[in-house]
Amino acid sequence: MRKGVIRPGHVQIRVLDITEALAHYRDLLGLIEVETDSQGRVYLKGWTEVDKFSVVLREADVPGMDFMGYKVLNSDVLGQLEEDLKAYGCEVEEIPAGELNGCGRRIRFAAPTGHQFELYAEKEQTGKWGLSKVNPEAWPRDLKGMKATRFDHCLLYGPNVEATYELFRDVLGFDLAEQVIDPEGNRAAAFLTASMKAHDVAFIECPEPGKFHHASFFLETWEDVLRAADLISMTDTSIDIGPTRHGLTHGKTIYFFDPSGNRNEVFCGGDYHYPDHEPVTWKAEDLGKAIFYHDRVLNERFLTVLT
Amino acid sequence: MRKGVIRPGHVQIRVLDITEALAHYRDLLGLIEVETDSQGRVYLKGWTEVDKFSVVLREADVPGMDFMGYKVLNSDVLGQLEEDLKAYGCEVEEIPAGELNGCGRRIRFAAPTGHQFELYAEKEQTGKWGLSKVNPEAWPRDLKGMKATRFDHCLLYGPNVEATYELFRDVLGFDLAEQVIDPEGNRAAAFLTASMKAHDVAFIECPEPGKFHHASFFLETWEDVLRAADLISMTDTSIDIGPTRHGLTHGKTIYFFDPSGNRNEVFCGGDYHYPDHEPVTWKAEDLGKAIFYHDRVLNERFLTVLT
Amino acid sequence: MRKGVIRPGHVQIRVLDITEALAHYRDLLGLIEVETDSQGRVYLKGWTEVDKFSVVLREADVPGMDFMGYKVLNSDVLGQLEEDLKAYGCEVEEIPAGELNGCGRRIRFAAPTGHQFELYAEKEQTGKWGLSKVNPEAWPRDLKGMKATRFDHCLLYGPNVEATYELFRDVLGFDLAEQVIDPEGNRAAAFLTASMKAHDVAFIECPEPGKFHHASFFLETWEDVLRAADLISMTDTSIDIGPTRHGLTHGKTIYFFDPSGNRNEVFCGGDYHYPDHEPVTWKAEDLGKAIFYHDRVLNERFLTVLT
Amino acid sequence: MRKGVIRPGHVQIRVLDITEALAHYRDLLGLIEVETDSQGRVYLKGWTEVDKFSVVLREADVPGMDFMGYKVLNSDVLGQLEEDLKAYGCEVEEIPAGELNGCGRRIRFAAPTGHQFELYAEKEQTGKWGLSKVNPEAWPRDLKGMKATRFDHCLLYGPNVEATYELFRDVLGFDLAEQVIDPEGNRAAAFLTASMKAHDVAFIECPEPGKFHHASFFLETWEDVLRAADLISMTDTSIDIGPTRHGLTHGKTIYFFDPSGNRNEVFCGGDYHYPDHEPVTWKAEDLGKAIFYHDRVLNERFLTVLT
Repeated sequence: MRKGVIRPGHVQIRVLDITEALAHYRDLLGLIEVETDSQGRVYLKGWTEVDKFSVVLREADVPGMDFMGYKVLNSDVLGQLEEDLKAYGCEVEEIPAGELNGCGRRIRFAAPTGHQFELYAEKEQTGKWGLSKVNPEAWPRDLKGMKATRFDHCLLYGPNVEATYELFRDVLGFDLAEQVIDPEGNRAAAFLTASMKAHDVAFIECPEPGKFHHASFFLETWEDVLRAADLISMTDTSIDIGPTRHGLTHGKTIYFFDPSGNRNEVFCGGDYHYPDHEPVTWKAEDLGKAIFYHDRVLNERFLTVLT
Repeated sequence: MRKGVIRPGHVQIRVLDITEALAHYRDLLGLIEVETDSQGRVYLKGWTEVDKFSVVLREADVPGMDFMGYKVLNSDVLGQLEEDLKAYGCEVEEIPAGELNGCGRRIRFAAPTGHQFELYAEKEQTGKWGLSKVNPEAWPRDLKGMKATRFDHCLLYGPNVEATYELFRDVLGFDLAEQVIDPEGNRAAAFLTASMKAHDVAFIECPEPGKFHHASFFLETWEDVLRAADLISMTDTSIDIGPTRHGLTHGKTIYFFDPSGNRNEVFCGGDYHYPDHEPVTWKAEDLGKAIFYHDRVLNERFLTVLT
Repeated sequence: MRKGVIRPGHVQIRVLDITEALAHYRDLLGLIEVETDSQGRVYLKGWTEVDKFSVVLREADVPGMDFMGYKVLNSDVLGQLEEDLKAYGCEVEEIPAGELNGCGRRIRFAAPTGHQFELYAEKEQTGKWGLSKVNPEAWPRDLKGMKATRFDHCLLYGPNVEATYELFRDVLGFDLAEQVIDPEGNRAAAFLTASMKAHDVAFIECPEPGKFHHASFFLETWEDVLRAADLISMTDTSIDIGPTRHGLTHGKTIYFFDPSGNRNEVFCGGDYHYPDHEPVTWKAEDLGKAIFYHDRVLNERFLTVLT
Repeated sequence: MRKGVIRPGHVQIRVLDITEALAHYRDLLGLIEVETDSQGRVYLKGWTEVDKFSVVLREADVPGMDFMGYKVLNSDVLGQLEEDLKAYGCEVEEIPAGELNGCGRRIRFAAPTGHQFELYAEKEQTGKWGLSKVNPEAWPRDLKGMKATRFDHCLLYGPNVEATYELFRDVLGFDLAEQVIDPEGNRAAAFLTASMKAHDVAFIECPEPGKFHHASFFLETWEDVLRAADLISMTDTSIDIGPTRHGLTHGKTIYFFDPSGNRNEVFCGGDYHYPDHEPVTWKAEDLGKAIFYHDRVLNERFLTVLT
């Protein structure tokens, strides 16, 4: 949090059928359905998130990610970062308060990878779902499905990962937690964090801009990863890979697809990062083990199926 | 235990290099090394097993399983089963006491699938490894690797699964716990038990006789399956598949290969069976899900790589 | 299963208020409510049990256990055991088929500890709750509360534990899996099994006959024990002790009380037993560690609060 | 990290016998022994910590905590905080670089609760123990005992918790993550964080200044808490309470004592905190549940046994 960026606050995902998507994100992942706005977008959140929402589903003709937003400390920080982005050469678009229900003014910019990002300082805080603010129980009793606790991060594919890393580092104050370096010394992947989490966003180099690899949600335990895997099977949901562990971050994970073909991850554990830590490096020659620690080979799908 | 057969007591596995094999079964699986006999065979056991040994490694030119042995209640039972096997038409070979160190007289016969099985009534009981018989602690502190608790079962491939099932049922008193039925109503797989365990041996139909699919060892928890997976990666051991769950028995599992190419499984959990239970049936059309509950497809290797 | 006794099949528990008790056993323990009979008794079962029911709640003025019943292999076995019990000197009462809905003829006798036991050969098998008999999923999605999988055993207090052990061993074919021996060499506790489970019933010596210490239900994992503990707190249920581990059997456990003051246990794990195993011995001087492995002291309540 | 304080970096604990203490912290907790300095102090660390050490044991006549130190971003931050502390009215002592092996210049001050705290900007980074910086495995294979991953926080008892909270908030930039409020509205306990962790230090009001309640170490899973509990029993270590869960932070925990009577905690899980989160409040009337979520009563020992 060198520059006042706190955390990933929301992601807007394009889905082909909003009803099917809602069933997936609410009933299977176990996100809490919050409300539908006047544009027909559906808002959801993980039960541990104090903010009103973190996932927005928008019906569209093609799947993918519209944008990802970060919460900053306050409106002074937001103003400063707006100036800094412009000074860095970014075109900054202003989205007025209320365009997303319960969310204040957002400023939007494109990263060199071709993805849209937003910053905002205000969002309604409705508290952890199902728990009292005083003497809160350990968890709410009415959770569904995978019981995803929070939206955690996205992995995005696009060109110019290096320039994007520099923008996130220099303007937004992110740290490089983990990286993949190819034999020529180029950074093929960058896992960036504004906090103790191993990644608040990650990028992998790819020629096509603005591609969405997955949105990831946090679970509490490896038992919960098994439960997620069982539910994927019971609901005939398309699986990508898992349960397994990553080499990068060492998180315990499973990947699957929403009905529109967007990839989701649920995971638990994983390394922590502090701003004085050296980045962890994986060699591109060992990318199989870096991504899938147990199999030590990549499935082609993981590298090529994007939305 | 309808006829006095208690449990799988030992398996003798052929390995190409006894030193490499010992490193694998002792240091990676965490079996306890017991001793080497005058033939150069190495004896091992899981730490919870009270018997002197349960795994015998024999150096040979081709990998595979020599035989699998079952402990019976006492020598009267052994004598009766010997008569019953002969009456059933089996050729019974007698192995004198002491041919395996610490093991009494064994009677050996071939199943119609082409595998060698043994029965015996006596084996030296050295107690659980590392624990006192009085006030035993929860576990011994010096376990290695995967900390495999016991030899659990084998899965064997061969012809005449139906006839083999009948032999195990009618002569040895095993129950059919789970089965795979093909569209013509034939039994393609039979999981047989003499106890509450989901399988004390399992057979899958295949034209070639006497093939060895895997020897399986029991772990305590799903965390231990993850630990096994991590160790497989750390030791550059050849993995087959997992961590995952089976549809059949619902055990949580991982498969990998010993240095000779013999497949091993370590698993935890799984259904229990009582002798008045109907067998659980999986359809051959859904064999993918029956074997690998999460992926719902078989990898070719699982069906064809045998020793 | 030396004499054809398969497993604990049911326990009838006296409760002061049937509605409160049902809420406890169904909503908190997560047992499946099956039906209410013409006497107002409520039948429940754990979701993995294939039999129609395993727990019967009867409203009464004092809490405690009415009787515990065991399933035997078939009616020939039942007839034989009836003769054997009489020959042993037990008074045997016959309960006609249908007195418990869906249960065949039962024979009832008193153990020297003053507890009523039953044997029966027939009970309607409705299958595992919520799962298909063909291609069964790993677990049903609609489980509640602690998701107790099955009724496992009872611990009973009374005089003449030694004579009761002899009756169970000699007539019913149970094995002594674990025991507590006092400095004079007397058996202060006996854990008896007819299967691989560490106990299908347990007795502790106490002057007053027929006392009920607890009914125990099986969970799958240590995570489930934590979940049970959390639910006990969330529902303001009276806790006895846990989460902890036993020295005896090494099961992982938590104890609490139903609204009538009957003690319940839910636990997972624990040692397995085969009929050729020596019993495990704990010294009465170390009873604290034998019962509560971590604290190594008994709470007074555990020894004195009985129903 | 509002003011550049990153994390708890070390704690110096007084022990009565350095050899016994080392056996406890190294062999039981599983901390890595780093070295012994010229004063005879022993340095240790958790295996995930990149810094050279985090725990210092000093032999002394009375147990307790000498001081707790925090790492700050850089020497400019250190200089600024030194000025800020003085401006706030704190007496600041300078400890020269090298007084602790491998640690740069430290500035020390007393909190109003009577505890000594330190800040420093430099400490040798030796990396995670047993892992490569490139392609790191998931964990090192030679860990001992409880496998504690890192020093996490201390809980300290003393007067003036409110003034101490203000100092940590206003000068050091800590947030109030959780609190206990008594019926008069006074803050009886304050859990403070400089990061996403639920607490980087915690204070409970008590008349006697400078008392040490416990030093806490992080584990990965609830299975590891069980393992810790088993090891406490196997080594006849004095236990306080657990395994259990806290209401405050919802961490899963166990407490025990080192041979000098200093209390230790190992725990896993627990809530996360971001700087825009409202503090979680527990009522002092419900302190039992706040501290021990399952038992919902305090043991006297927890409140009164301090070093």
